[in-house]
Amino acid sequence: MPERIEVLEDICKQAGRLALKYFREQDTLVIDNKGHHDFVSQADRNVELLTRDLLAKAFPEDAIVGEEHAPTPGASGFTWVIDPIDGTTNFINGIPAWTVVVAGVRGAATECGVIHDPANDETFVAVKGEGAKLNGAPLKLEDSRKMSEGTVGVGYSNRVDGQGIVRLVTALVDEGSMFYRNASGALSLAYVAAGRLLGYAEEHMNAWDCVAGQLIVAEAGGCVEVQNAEDMIRDGGRVVVGTPAVFDRLLELSKTAFEQTD
Amino acid sequence: MPERIEVLEDICKQAGRLALKYFREQDTLVIDNKGHHDFVSQADRNVELLTRDLLAKAFPEDAIVGEEHAPTPGASGFTWVIDPIDGTTNFINGIPAWTVVVAGVRGAATECGVIHDPANDETFVAVKGEGAKLNGAPLKLEDSRKMSEGTVGVGYSNRVDGQGIVRLVTALVDEGSMFYRNASGALSLAYVAAGRLLGYAEEHMNAWDCVAGQLIVAEAGGCVEVQNAEDMIRDGGRVVVGTPAVFDRLLELSKTAFEQTD
Repeated sequence: MPERIEVLEDICKQAGRLALKYFREQDTLVIDNKGHHDFVSQADRNVELLTRDLLAKAFPEDAIVGEEHAPTPGASGFTWVIDPIDGTTNFINGIPAWTVVVAGVRGAATECGVIHDPANDETFVAVKGEGAKLNGAPLKLEDSRKMSEGTVGVGYSNRVDGQGIVRLVTALVDEGSMFYRNASGALSLAYVAAGRLLGYAEEHMNAWDCVAGQLIVAEAGGCVEVQNAEDMIRDGGRVVVGTPAVFDRLLELSKTAFEQTD
Repeated sequence: MPERIEVLEDICKQAGRLALKYFREQDTLVIDNKGHHDFVSQADRNVELLTRDLLAKAFPEDAIVGEEHAPTPGASGFTWVIDPIDGTTNFINGIPAWTVVVAGVRGAATECGVIHDPANDETFVAVKGEGAKLNGAPLKLEDSRKMSEGTVGVGYSNRVDGQGIVRLVTALVDEGSMFYRNASGALSLAYVAAGRLLGYAEEHMNAWDCVAGQLIVAEAGGCVEVQNAEDMIRDGGRVVVGTPAVFDRLLELSKTAFEQTD
């Protein structure tokens, strides 16, 4: 695994360089709204293709699953799950907060994960049982602050009714906590692992958006809501993570906010 | 003014380099919470001191006002207003979304402004009547999207009761818009000018946090709520900006959200 993760990190950085080229190029292109979306879809597809090619060359026995292309079967029982650009809206809008995400999973267990932020040159990495790192330095969560003493990330998408996030923001403000939304779920999870946010909650994430980040948080010493792995892989689901000091309370608030029906 | 703004840009970049040095250093220091806040206060003070020194040398006739030190009087009637680190919470938390902000004001009018994001090497600049630029390239807002088709930035601080931001987030979600909060008001204003956010609203900002950004938005072709300048300078106040296509609606929602009493 140590060599695999080094190879994986390098692959994510290569994919990140290609994505960054597209990101910077869009500023210099004169394209209408429709054309702009096509350009970004092309970036997404081509970054995934590059990542797939590099993974297939490095690990020919493994399966590969990505958002944009059909799955590649493998013989090893090990699957690479790719999210070529997490935070696509930021990417489209020109906001430098989006990431390349790859997780390595066996059955329902995530064995390793990388979240790479090309614009800020930050690479968050974890291997199950071996800890988490940011740019090579170990991450260790030792933050005893309560929710009222810090900032909690929140996320939502058009996959869910917006009333859940409204209730969560209301609960966080009532708790005395500051909320934060940077529109990249994977980057927010990485920020929790690095101690930059006390926690993160989103009503629905797809597996490819969250499993790498959940492993990185857990390996940094944070807490992660355990979901049924098969449900999560098939349908996605709620994601709640946090420092040990805030996790129970954040989970409680998130459950109330997201389960309430109008 | 063209030479003054070039000098000002260079001063902000020098200040940004010092701030970035502190920002990166804090990762390698082992300091407790209290010590951490002292370290960041020191960074804030020293970045302001450097900015003051450079401004005083370049423009010895002008007055200087900053957050951290006593005002320096001047004979020219022109005042430099410094916010050495806008987005201090991000700076403390290790999130690369904070800026060095300087505005040049005469009486109640902002004549020029710079918002410099050192971590991403982006410099937003405007001169009254002469347009706005990002890293030298002209900014021109030509976005016809409605609020329901894009993302709107929001801000709040512990200077206000949190119920205003809760009502605004609720209204934005009901409108079908995505909300965004990156915890740096000046950076969010700059993002509106660059077309990255459709608008930004905050119930209370201090003048040194917002006047540069308001000018940059206006000079990029955006709309800015006009406030009584003297009130704003003395007490701060509500800030609402947006593209021409969303501004009226965002102002309406913001007024309702922020003026409502519980």
